[in-house]
Amino acid sequence: MTTDPADPPPPAAGPHVGGAIRLRAMGSFHVGGEDVLLETGAPRMVQLTRTGQPARFDPNGTYVIGQMYVQYFLPDPARYGRPLLMWHGGGLTGACWETTPDGRPGFRDLFLRAGWDVYVSDAAERGRSGFAPVPDVWGTPISQTVETVFERFRMGEALPRGEVGRARAHAFAGTAFPVEALGRFAAQMVPRWTHTDDIILAAYIAELKAVGPAVVMAHSQGCVFALEAAARHPDLVEALVLLEPAAIPACALEAGRREVPALVVLGDYIDRNVRWSKMREDIRDFVARAPRSELLSLPEHGVNGNSHMLMMDTNSHEVARLVATWLGPRSLPAG
Amino acid sequence: MTTDPADPPPPAAGPHVGGAIRLRAMGSFHVGGEDVLLETGAPRMVQLTRTGQPARFDPNGTYVIGQMYVQYFLPDPARYGRPLLMWHGGGLTGACWETTPDGRPGFRDLFLRAGWDVYVSDAAERGRSGFAPVPDVWGTPISQTVETVFERFRMGEALPRGEVGRARAHAFAGTAFPVEALGRFAAQMVPRWTHTDDIILAAYIAELKAVGPAVVMAHSQGCVFALEAAARHPDLVEALVLLEPAAIPACALEAGRREVPALVVLGDYIDRNVRWSKMREDIRDFVARAPRSELLSLPEHGVNGNSHMLMMDTNSHEVARLVATWLGPRSLPAG
Repeated sequence: MTTDPADPPPPAAGPHVGGAIRLRAMGSFHVGGEDVLLETGAPRMVQLTRTGQPARFDPNGTYVIGQMYVQYFLPDPARYGRPLLMWHGGGLTGACWETTPDGRPGFRDLFLRAGWDVYVSDAAERGRSGFAPVPDVWGTPISQTVETVFERFRMGEALPRGEVGRARAHAFAGTAFPVEALGRFAAQMVPRWTHTDDIILAAYIAELKAVGPAVVMAHSQGCVFALEAAARHPDLVEALVLLEPAAIPACALEAGRREVPALVVLGDYIDRNVRWSKMREDIRDFVARAPRSELLSLPEHGVNGNSHMLMMDTNSHEVARLVATWLGPRSLPAG
Repeated sequence: MTTDPADPPPPAAGPHVGGAIRLRAMGSFHVGGEDVLLETGAPRMVQLTRTGQPARFDPNGTYVIGQMYVQYFLPDPARYGRPLLMWHGGGLTGACWETTPDGRPGFRDLFLRAGWDVYVSDAAERGRSGFAPVPDVWGTPISQTVETVFERFRMGEALPRGEVGRARAHAFAGTAFPVEALGRFAAQMVPRWTHTDDIILAAYIAELKAVGPAVVMAHSQGCVFALEAAARHPDLVEALVLLEPAAIPACALEAGRREVPALVVLGDYIDRNVRWSKMREDIRDFVARAPRSELLSLPEHGVNGNSHMLMMDTNSHEVARLVATWLGPRSLPAG
């Protein structure tokens, strides 16, 4: 591994742009989910802590599943009249919007400092949202290897198995991804299920109903949910910022839908990745059919080297500035 | 369910004691963990998003497992010269220190406002720490039902299966737990494994090495890790606040160890629960053998009605004040 995750950057050492952060409030809550009652499990004895008393474990009873964790940070003073919801991509959690793997302030802090009420969630089934506690309800989760992610997230060409420690040698020339912090990025990855889309979408819609109308900033798989939520509830979504969408769902292309303004942001090296070249065609098709949408191809804008994880890239401040420039005039002022 | 988790409290509606929060920084990182290389899995095709391109999924390659997510909030100005680390109990995540289920500021905010640098983690395997992505590495996780937790966490006597919606009728008279928000509390619960103690402890020790020496405030199962970490690294733990320990590990009783000052806090209704009555005996034995330790039995101090989740109880401000009163004189000032 290029970076030993046991050796994190000193937490207070990053460039804390702009001095102190002033919040009028912060907190968290869960939205969505449903009660399920299990009645067919077999009780057994378990040791809940190494040195504790053995306890009878009866799996039968009530569980909450499908809920979503939401953590919010409200700056003082508020500048915009709508909250900004950040929806992460597949295999990640809301942590991806926080400190970058190389220790700089993440998009959460950049947009908070720009005056946005920021709500960061963990998609249902991931992170602090928990997952179905009853075996086999959702099947077996999958997780992508560091090598797979390195290629798929366009940090470089194929990384030979077991050569994570030599990632720099395989990275694209000029990459803006902080390759030396690849280990810290990999530590953020969590398993995911592949058949829980409806559960995840329902929880996102519950969030929109709880705190919307809102601006939704989404990344990768999160963009699919954002487009689906906007198609179903255009009244609850003021604008969409779609960072490297993993797919364009059919509902986003339907004739007669009420269009929500959208900025689609794509990074660099797309020509060098067959899967992303195909995705870019789909995205161009979407933007061509959506007059209130816009494609911001970073390299065509003179911003080079961005990977799929553009909110973590070393030029993330620049990417955030371009997004904020698009978003500002489309947003209600506070008050 | 007594409370519909789809209907959260308005996030900014709680009593935000003391006006704006001023932070000199906040952020997150992962500590600990190790790389594992899998080479014996069978590749297959998976659909990573509902409408995306099918992708070849090769499970072979490098994963990071056993790492721990740490989120920090540093008040401006700092008041103490040591950080305060908050370690949650079994089946929960760091979210338990945040907003209470009934929408009040949690211990994170109360101690932050008192001037502490607060570090909230999710134990390795839980929440944003992720879990081993390779099936069967750690076996099958377990999760406790709402009914089990209601009895075991001393919210009341046994709750008949499926009667979660009638929890108030089964609650102890005078309980301080916000029973009407039981559904919101249940939404915080996550599955846990039962054979990962060494992995979890290693990550906590990695956290202490990264940001310690520190004061550790732990709850329930977290207390076992706190006592084990203090026994191994007394130089890294300035003081322990042990909220309702789930067990006292043998290492905490060893003769000749270097004792770390500890405050053990116990809530109410212990006489009405056989398991907790036994635990209290173990705790009294520990305190009797540790001259720098102190047992704060809340009901003996005139504070009544506390459940196992005393940081969520309606009198949590009062509990926090008693802890802060013990902690202040034992803590280095900042600077």
